Amino acid sequence: MFDKILFPTDFSDVAAKALQYVKQLRETGGREVVVLHVIDQSNLELLSSYSTIGDYITIEKEIDKRASEEIGIISNELRQLGFTVKERIEKGIPRRVVLKVADEENPSVIVVGSHGKSNLEEMLLGSISEKVVRKSRHPVLVIKR
Amino acid sequence: MFDKILFPTDFSDVAAKALQYVKQLRETGGREVVVLHVIDQSNLELLSSYSTIGDYITIEKEIDKRASEEIGIISNELRQLGFTVKERIEKGIPRRVVLKVADEENPSVIVVGSHGKSNLEEMLLGSISEKVVRKSRHPVLVIKR
Repeated sequence: MFDKILFPTDFSDVAAKALQYVKQLRETGGREVVVLHVIDQSNLELLSSYSTIGDYITIEKEIDKRASEEIGIISNELRQLGFTVKERIEKGIPRRVVLKVADEENPSVIVVGSHGKSNLEEMLLGSISEKVVRKSRHPVLVIKR
Repeated sequence: MFDKILFPTDFSDVAAKALQYVKQLRETGGREVVVLHVIDQSNLELLSSYSTIGDYITIEKEIDKRASEEIGIISNELRQLGFTVKERIEKGIPRRVVLKVADEENPSVIVVGSHGKSNLEEMLLGSISEKVVRKSRHPVLVIKR
């Protein structure tokens, strides 16, 4: 029932809190975690309009590198608890990518923080967790700030 | 982390599915379940406008009796698994009552079905689970239809 967990993270404080719940699910048969980080396309577009091509490439590489490092730390913590871990770093619109990956991975449950870092998007469109709760066909555990 | 569970149920199929998840949480330290059923005030008002006082009292008693019976069946199932169970039957507006009871009971997690029986309310106001996810300060596990 909690066998395969999809954990989307933007590395925010609420996501860190949600990670504690993911770990706890190990005790109730949690076996595999897909850790997903979405690099927000709109941030990249904003960045590209304010920087030279050279700067942009440098900064994008830096963003990719940091995402890999952060997701690696999370994966290690989960592996130490006995989980099988799959890492996915995607670029796109976070709420859409989370739903797309949920469709592809078909998790038993999605564990997600109620609010993320992207306050502008949340103000305009509602939080990602609300979209996921509304649109996903999978159970969703929402952890609050 | 999943110590005290609030389980609001309208006795629908989705709520029955959510109950299976509540049971599963026993394995990860679930100890106490508050089973909540809200008798929808708007249904009672509708009923009162279409029936004589005598009929209304009879039907309201019947509604109360059925709610007690249904919640009793759920409680027994949970007690057999070793949970401590508290039953609450309330009258009011379901989404408000769920949030009020969550404030009073301070559960570790709320487990709720994504959609209930009251399709009219959901069409007008969105589903109860969405309101609970948005407004509650507690973690919410939403089980989909």
